[in-house]
Amino acid sequence: MNDPTIHPVLLCGGSGTRLWPLSRKALPKQFAPLIGNKSLLQLTLERLSALNRTITCVASEDHRFLVREAMENARTEGRQILEPMPRNTAAAMAAAALLAEPDDLLLFAPADHHIPDAALFAATVREGVDAALAGRIVTFGVAPSFPSTAYGYIEAAGPTGHGESRVVARFVEKPTASVAESLILHGGYCWNAGIFLVQARTLVAALRTHAPDILAACERAAAAVSVDGSFLRLDREAFEGCRGESIDYAVLEKHAGVAVVRFEGTWSDVGSWNAVALLHPADDAGNRLSGMASALRSRNTFVHAPHRPVVALGTEDLIIVDTPDAVLVAGAGCAEQVADVVRMLSLEGKAVATEHRRVVRPWGAYDSVDMGERFQVKRLTVKPGGKLSLQMHHHRAEHWIVVKGTARATRGGEVQLVRENESIYLPSGTIHRLENPGKTMLEVIEVQTGGYLGEDDIVRFDDTYGRCAAIELRGGGAERPAAQSMVSPPPAVETGIAATASA
Amino acid sequence: MNDPTIHPVLLCGGSGTRLWPLSRKALPKQFAPLIGNKSLLQLTLERLSALNRTITCVASEDHRFLVREAMENARTEGRQILEPMPRNTAAAMAAAALLAEPDDLLLFAPADHHIPDAALFAATVREGVDAALAGRIVTFGVAPSFPSTAYGYIEAAGPTGHGESRVVARFVEKPTASVAESLILHGGYCWNAGIFLVQARTLVAALRTHAPDILAACERAAAAVSVDGSFLRLDREAFEGCRGESIDYAVLEKHAGVAVVRFEGTWSDVGSWNAVALLHPADDAGNRLSGMASALRSRNTFVHAPHRPVVALGTEDLIIVDTPDAVLVAGAGCAEQVADVVRMLSLEGKAVATEHRRVVRPWGAYDSVDMGERFQVKRLTVKPGGKLSLQMHHHRAEHWIVVKGTARATRGGEVQLVRENESIYLPSGTIHRLENPGKTMLEVIEVQTGGYLGEDDIVRFDDTYGRCAAIELRGGGAERPAAQSMVSPPPAVETGIAATASA
Repeated sequence: MNDPTIHPVLLCGGSGTRLWPLSRKALPKQFAPLIGNKSLLQLTLERLSALNRTITCVASEDHRFLVREAMENARTEGRQILEPMPRNTAAAMAAAALLAEPDDLLLFAPADHHIPDAALFAATVREGVDAALAGRIVTFGVAPSFPSTAYGYIEAAGPTGHGESRVVARFVEKPTASVAESLILHGGYCWNAGIFLVQARTLVAALRTHAPDILAACERAAAAVSVDGSFLRLDREAFEGCRGESIDYAVLEKHAGVAVVRFEGTWSDVGSWNAVALLHPADDAGNRLSGMASALRSRNTFVHAPHRPVVALGTEDLIIVDTPDAVLVAGAGCAEQVADVVRMLSLEGKAVATEHRRVVRPWGAYDSVDMGERFQVKRLTVKPGGKLSLQMHHHRAEHWIVVKGTARATRGGEVQLVRENESIYLPSGTIHRLENPGKTMLEVIEVQTGGYLGEDDIVRFDDTYGRCAAIELRGGGAERPAAQSMVSPPPAVETGIAATASA
Repeated sequence: MNDPTIHPVLLCGGSGTRLWPLSRKALPKQFAPLIGNKSLLQLTLERLSALNRTITCVASEDHRFLVREAMENARTEGRQILEPMPRNTAAAMAAAALLAEPDDLLLFAPADHHIPDAALFAATVREGVDAALAGRIVTFGVAPSFPSTAYGYIEAAGPTGHGESRVVARFVEKPTASVAESLILHGGYCWNAGIFLVQARTLVAALRTHAPDILAACERAAAAVSVDGSFLRLDREAFEGCRGESIDYAVLEKHAGVAVVRFEGTWSDVGSWNAVALLHPADDAGNRLSGMASALRSRNTFVHAPHRPVVALGTEDLIIVDTPDAVLVAGAGCAEQVADVVRMLSLEGKAVATEHRRVVRPWGAYDSVDMGERFQVKRLTVKPGGKLSLQMHHHRAEHWIVVKGTARATRGGEVQLVRENESIYLPSGTIHRLENPGKTMLEVIEVQTGGYLGEDDIVRFDDTYGRCAAIELRGGGAERPAAQSMVSPPPAVETGIAATASA
């Protein structure tokens, strides 16, 4: 059996607080542009598309549009299994296995790792196929390049008889520095990268043996799955009751039939700013500069500066990360403590702990570029075909100035095209909608004026992306409906709009 | 002779690159909001107004409106002597002395020092009056609090017989650390703060003796001074020929009749970020945080963060300065090398070396809040009574949305009021003007669209602040006239506008 179909399944559930302020709860690291303006998710999708262009992603409900956008950008297709809440890797993999065909050969991979050599990776994965088809869970272990204390290790024993794969003797949790050194010297160990090739039926059987409660909860969640286009929503109540555990603890460490194939290429889990720094070339003084960064008399300083000039002067062993609305400066030895910063800011009630200034929406994105006492300026970017919801604000008026592309604007009962360099005014209380009917990106400067500018001053009448009802109530983004204050629009206008909106 | 009138003269010519990125050539440190949102110039004016509310400022032509605005904010009045180019303190003081009455008792002081105890300062100045009236140049020496190597020292000898003043034995240039220690141990030395009380005739006589060429050049520059309201413009050609030298080198170190009065209060020349840091209280770990700064496991870290959250994690002996368009992170030991950063950025042709995103104009200010391929968004703030020039652009259209206050807008032949939440569109080629006819600040969001958005696409027809002609050609700010491409506007429109503008 040569080259059977491999079905990649990407695990996109990470919350990624360790790369704050680039990565935040609303836009975790796998979705943030990190390498050459591409996200790790998109790079991972591109890498796996060498094996199969149809890919399943398991992701949070909150990130469904980010996942779909990344899949479009990577020119891949497939389904998104949506978790109503995070329940760690065992549940995510169980759900995906249960929603696949029993014979399917599934390649599980985290969405937020960096593996530059896609061809070598694909070849290594294929080395594991025979062992997987023989009923083993095949892990891919990374040949270690230094005695890391940040990764778990896998000890390989003798060959399985299937290609290059070897029997796994044991898993070693993150070791101390001295243990890590001895593992490296020993030579028979590799890093556990959390990448697995396994037939769906094999994984389900292993779960039934080692974690029957997780399997049972996921069976209920998958049996009651609701289908919404490419979105497969797991049943909330059933999934909520599932135990959250990693696949390593739940299954692999207890399972006899685990094999390992060694991957000899470069790999990073991009798990800290120090790991991100290593993705950039160093100058003679060990500085790693990206974007608009400069350094003078500095050593071993990493600067992430995509937006503005950032200058490091006489710094040493330092990490500097600039984003449009927050800056982090950290000693290189403290890179693993960035999550503590997020906790501190959250305790202080600062939105910047979890939210970005630029917010991604199914229709595109918006960025708050200026704000005053009674006004706010946003740049809206609407994708070709993108449609904001049909909506109304009680307390604010809006001015839209089209600065790129052509907009279709609904205002009360009329629909009109607004072209580049044209503007339209939407008084408060007017039902309106913005759409991009064109084939190129639409950019609009929106100036909001009024005594109250909160994002919750919105009444939504229709939405292409199904955001009128319960989903968006959980979301909490820019366009949450006014949950408590939902009012009827003026009947005359509503009638006019209804006709328009259905047109 | 008790309490004769003291005439303060503020020297505002410093370029202040050592506080980049807050201080830049276009807005040097004395004009930047540094302490409780006030500039050092405003604080200095407020301090000196205890002696006399009529104050003369010597400043660069480029900064004339900044000086006038600070004088208004400090509720002081007086004249601004404008230098066409910098020529150091001897020339600035010579010009001021020549433009004063010979008997005037002039108090020369830098505009960018911090002296919190205004009452003690005024009392100390008055201690020097008798010696100054007796024909001495009286310096004020600061009682040193540590063996600084950043300041020059003054050695005091016996009393002059006039109050607390003593004869100056000698001036000591910035010493080495060990010399500084011995000066402090000796006890007879104080820091040279560059503050002088002297009768105009005394200073002129001393210049005639020690620096006759400087005096002669300044006599020519002052004789040909042109008066423009409160602005006194020194003659460009004469002043250009003047030697640039400090008053210390040119006169004081050679002059016999110098006295010193000791000032026992707190003083800082705010000459580096370390000096700025010391103006903020330290927490238990020695961190000094301002604005939206936080620190976690950091020590001796200064963070200037007026605009956005800036977090220092595990940093030590560090300076972090955030501005809307540039960030500096410097080792505390490198604070004196910030000017090197400015040189480096200038060599790289980066505007951020010398320009700010927010640009101050005589009518108010503008801030570039967003920019795209074919558009730009600015927030314009227009002071009550402020008027932008009557102007026209060839390549860009403008949308103005009034978000605060009321605007008077001239468009072609019509003049109309545009109120909060109203907008107006100005097609390219249309002659237009924005004014604030009200009593409160006017804020306007300006969206520019077009294929060319350079600040030099402007034809100016009339300007309240005299910026139509040569001055603005030297300036290089936002509203430089199209020097090479000055064209006639369409005659019909021009006629309409001319009538309007004179109304």
